[in-house]
Amino acid sequence: MSRKIVIVGGVAGGATAAARLRRLDENARIVMFEKGEHISFANCGLPYYIGGVIRSKDKLTLQTPESFSRRYNVDVRVKSEVIRINRQDKTVTVKDHHTGNTYEEAYDVLILSPGAEPMVPNPDWARLDAVFTLRSIPDTFKITEYVQRINPRRAVVVGAGYVGMEMAENLHQLGLEVSIIEMADHVIPPLDAEMAAEVHHHILGKGISLYLGKGLTAIRQSAGGYELTLSDGENLTADMVILAAGVRPDSRLAVEAGLETGLRGCIVTNDRMQTSDPSIYAVGDAIEVKDFVTGKKVFVPLASPANKQARIAADNICGLDSTYGGTQGTAILKVFDMTVAVTGNSERALKAAGVDYEKSYTYSASHAGYYPGATFMTIKLLFERKSGTILGAQIVGHQGVDKRMDVLATAIRARMTVRDLAGLELAYAPPFGSAKDPVNIAGYVASNILNGTMRIFHWHDADGLDASRATLLDVRTEAEFKKGTLKNAVNIPLDSLRERLDELDKNKPVYVFCQVGFRSYVASRILMQKGFREVYNLSGGYRLYKLVASR
Amino acid sequence: MSRKIVIVGGVAGGATAAARLRRLDENARIVMFEKGEHISFANCGLPYYIGGVIRSKDKLTLQTPESFSRRYNVDVRVKSEVIRINRQDKTVTVKDHHTGNTYEEAYDVLILSPGAEPMVPNPDWARLDAVFTLRSIPDTFKITEYVQRINPRRAVVVGAGYVGMEMAENLHQLGLEVSIIEMADHVIPPLDAEMAAEVHHHILGKGISLYLGKGLTAIRQSAGGYELTLSDGENLTADMVILAAGVRPDSRLAVEAGLETGLRGCIVTNDRMQTSDPSIYAVGDAIEVKDFVTGKKVFVPLASPANKQARIAADNICGLDSTYGGTQGTAILKVFDMTVAVTGNSERALKAAGVDYEKSYTYSASHAGYYPGATFMTIKLLFERKSGTILGAQIVGHQGVDKRMDVLATAIRARMTVRDLAGLELAYAPPFGSAKDPVNIAGYVASNILNGTMRIFHWHDADGLDASRATLLDVRTEAEFKKGTLKNAVNIPLDSLRERLDELDKNKPVYVFCQVGFRSYVASRILMQKGFREVYNLSGGYRLYKLVASR
Repeated sequence: MSRKIVIVGGVAGGATAAARLRRLDENARIVMFEKGEHISFANCGLPYYIGGVIRSKDKLTLQTPESFSRRYNVDVRVKSEVIRINRQDKTVTVKDHHTGNTYEEAYDVLILSPGAEPMVPNPDWARLDAVFTLRSIPDTFKITEYVQRINPRRAVVVGAGYVGMEMAENLHQLGLEVSIIEMADHVIPPLDAEMAAEVHHHILGKGISLYLGKGLTAIRQSAGGYELTLSDGENLTADMVILAAGVRPDSRLAVEAGLETGLRGCIVTNDRMQTSDPSIYAVGDAIEVKDFVTGKKVFVPLASPANKQARIAADNICGLDSTYGGTQGTAILKVFDMTVAVTGNSERALKAAGVDYEKSYTYSASHAGYYPGATFMTIKLLFERKSGTILGAQIVGHQGVDKRMDVLATAIRARMTVRDLAGLELAYAPPFGSAKDPVNIAGYVASNILNGTMRIFHWHDADGLDASRATLLDVRTEAEFKKGTLKNAVNIPLDSLRERLDELDKNKPVYVFCQVGFRSYVASRILMQKGFREVYNLSGGYRLYKLVASR
Repeated sequence: MSRKIVIVGGVAGGATAAARLRRLDENARIVMFEKGEHISFANCGLPYYIGGVIRSKDKLTLQTPESFSRRYNVDVRVKSEVIRINRQDKTVTVKDHHTGNTYEEAYDVLILSPGAEPMVPNPDWARLDAVFTLRSIPDTFKITEYVQRINPRRAVVVGAGYVGMEMAENLHQLGLEVSIIEMADHVIPPLDAEMAAEVHHHILGKGISLYLGKGLTAIRQSAGGYELTLSDGENLTADMVILAAGVRPDSRLAVEAGLETGLRGCIVTNDRMQTSDPSIYAVGDAIEVKDFVTGKKVFVPLASPANKQARIAADNICGLDSTYGGTQGTAILKVFDMTVAVTGNSERALKAAGVDYEKSYTYSASHAGYYPGATFMTIKLLFERKSGTILGAQIVGHQGVDKRMDVLATAIRARMTVRDLAGLELAYAPPFGSAKDPVNIAGYVASNILNGTMRIFHWHDADGLDASRATLLDVRTEAEFKKGTLKNAVNIPLDSLRERLDELDKNKPVYVFCQVGFRSYVASRILMQKGFREVYNLSGGYRLYKLVASR
């Protein structure tokens, strides 16, 4: 008799595994249990349905249980919750929510794809009418229905991660006054704080209110709506609250079955997605993965890794040689007119891991400046100080951010160094890029740092400089200088620097800066070769310093 | 005394080299000769200035000789043509076109960046008022002035390479009737013919006339304009003619100086951009480069490699260790509402080189289908049959083509295989991509071919199949089948295939197809496991077959 494969969870990981399994093994019996009523739905589209960007309900369900079953000959059972794994018997216990009945289903191989569930800081809040989480289609319809029925004026989003930010934008598009509460000191926690500074300006400019470095401690229903109390005692009033404070792995079944779990209760697997029980595989948001860059164990609940893991689990179950290389955490987010993207490690993560890294900031146009419509982006590159190996990257900008992020994500996968970025031959025509692409420029700058052609200082060093012992040199034009500069800076515009070198003290360290870091780089090269022994260039320039300082 | 570096040519290669040299060596004397009057101008923007997309003349000149000289302390001499290299004396002979005088200039190191010049099939044509080439700013103004003065109605563009296609589009935007004559059987010769098929449909739909597989043999002025005669005897009438039939390396100086030259007269350099004379470097469109993929010598006149070579030459002159890894020929082109991009080797090139390759075609959406505005793109992937190493890629589509091309160009640089593409962790959110990115999908499909999970046949095999000895199976819906299918195909929709297997002869090879290749892949997996010994899936599907057939 053919073997029987049982899958727990019918969304990204489960449905992908089922389809791949069927393609590889036409004879297996495949049963897929999903506790909700939808399979393989458009999780990542839910905020956009609420905002009216996606207009049709049908668009949210990529497959119906029927269409999927017909195509792949999979026994799809929705509203069927697996409540226990009986490893000795190789069965699962299933609760059928249609009938209320409970039954056992045998398996030869079991795949767990239970996903993650939203964290709710206080279980009482979940009972309030106006408090929502967003993970499923029913969650979505509940929010939409509430908005249409109550016509709320003020929304508070708790948590400024990907889902929180998307919800803030979409509720704002619906005309609500939106406030965001975030425990970290900046939005989008995978970003480093200084890169988030520009995002703060952008969303504040759209009329969103930000409460950073604060948590929500209480929600009370009142006459005028809901009273929210923040961790610093401040009060807010709202008509609805979205809890988007992160997710936790839904690993209860695995824990109860005695499977090995690790970080934050995630299910532990090997690189073939096999758990501590060789008959049980696990994929998706409930598992612990290896950080591709550092090799550390991490919890990264994202759709793209879940899909890959599901395919790899199916491959291995069917005898194909396929291993998972780890997760980089590549992610992207539309924030109104901006785009924000990350891959690899953040500076915060590298610091915590004790890695000897350096960083560079570059500010480049999305395409040739002479062709209409170019916009600028800031690229932060994190790389190993000795080897130049790329460890992480963050981009904040408008057009073409996604492209550069994907190139950098690919470069990290290939274990490239910043020197390799300089050599990348990318597609150039004026509507699409520049002969020196932003990625090449980032590579050039980082290579210059690496080989000592340029020494740098950073925005966080600027305020600590002692003007009596060092020269702060602004090489922008006089007009730029007059509009604002670093404290105690002197101004010699780059194009007259060569004639005015004698105004500077060669024995003092010189900290040079300009608007974004290029003119000051040229200036630093002049100074370094003209007998100034210590010359540092402000990476990211006055622009980045100002962005962070003016937050 | 400090050494003296002389640069011949002040556009992409020359100006980049000069700027990098100065940053690395503040003390060198640097003289840059340019025979024209502009340096470092926006070559790639010229067609868009003619079309009115770029509106200001100032935008075309990125640097003036004065601004460049001030910034980099370079002795910039425009309208100064180097007419001879005197290697024994280490001097160049310069003709000053301001004064008509000729003089010698000594060098310690010489950098040649003479570029390339448009090919003019017949020198008499260059003397006609209405016949133009496009390489410089004066060329551009001549065309613009002609268009404004004569108000021409009909333009003929000779050559459908990058410049020819951009000129066709821009003249069309100005309201001219545009015809394109191209010797190859398809536009954009770096593309393979079947990938150009969709471009043909698009530009024909815009009202452009195409004369493919034909050359221009004669131009005669007549009462009603200019009479053009094609190689097949056909005649066309036009009011203006753009010769965009390719460029040749402007290596005359190098040849006369006895430097080693190679392919098509290109200057030969080592990977540090040094010519056969160690005091002379050469960069840009006049040099022969190594194909990054095959290692063969090639002539690839593109801006991005020229810039990189210039930087590498400067690095080596200043003692930095920097080598050029070869050219992939990554290029991109906007064609009205479409985008076309290539990297690495074309199938034609691989065939010519005798490489054992395979290819796959995939057709994917630019972003999640449920988020508004997604468009489709065709990706052709060329890879080594045994190892799966990526050898080349071509994409034709609309949005997001540039992104996927840059990812593939990076993957080729990293010598990745198609399996690595499957594992790339790219940035996903609904406005930007899919959890399974088009690049991942291309990797999945190619990996399936590689590991034997899928056997394929191609659009060019379809017409040669003998229906008496093989089954042609269309697994699309009945409605799709009725609108058109392959000759002698039978129809069993995928979702009823399992029940209708007995209608098919297991002993005959089965050639399965659907619209783009996915449903037929699922079908081929069913058949392969149900006792059909030879099953082939049509890569690219009926869609690609139809596109090529209906050209």
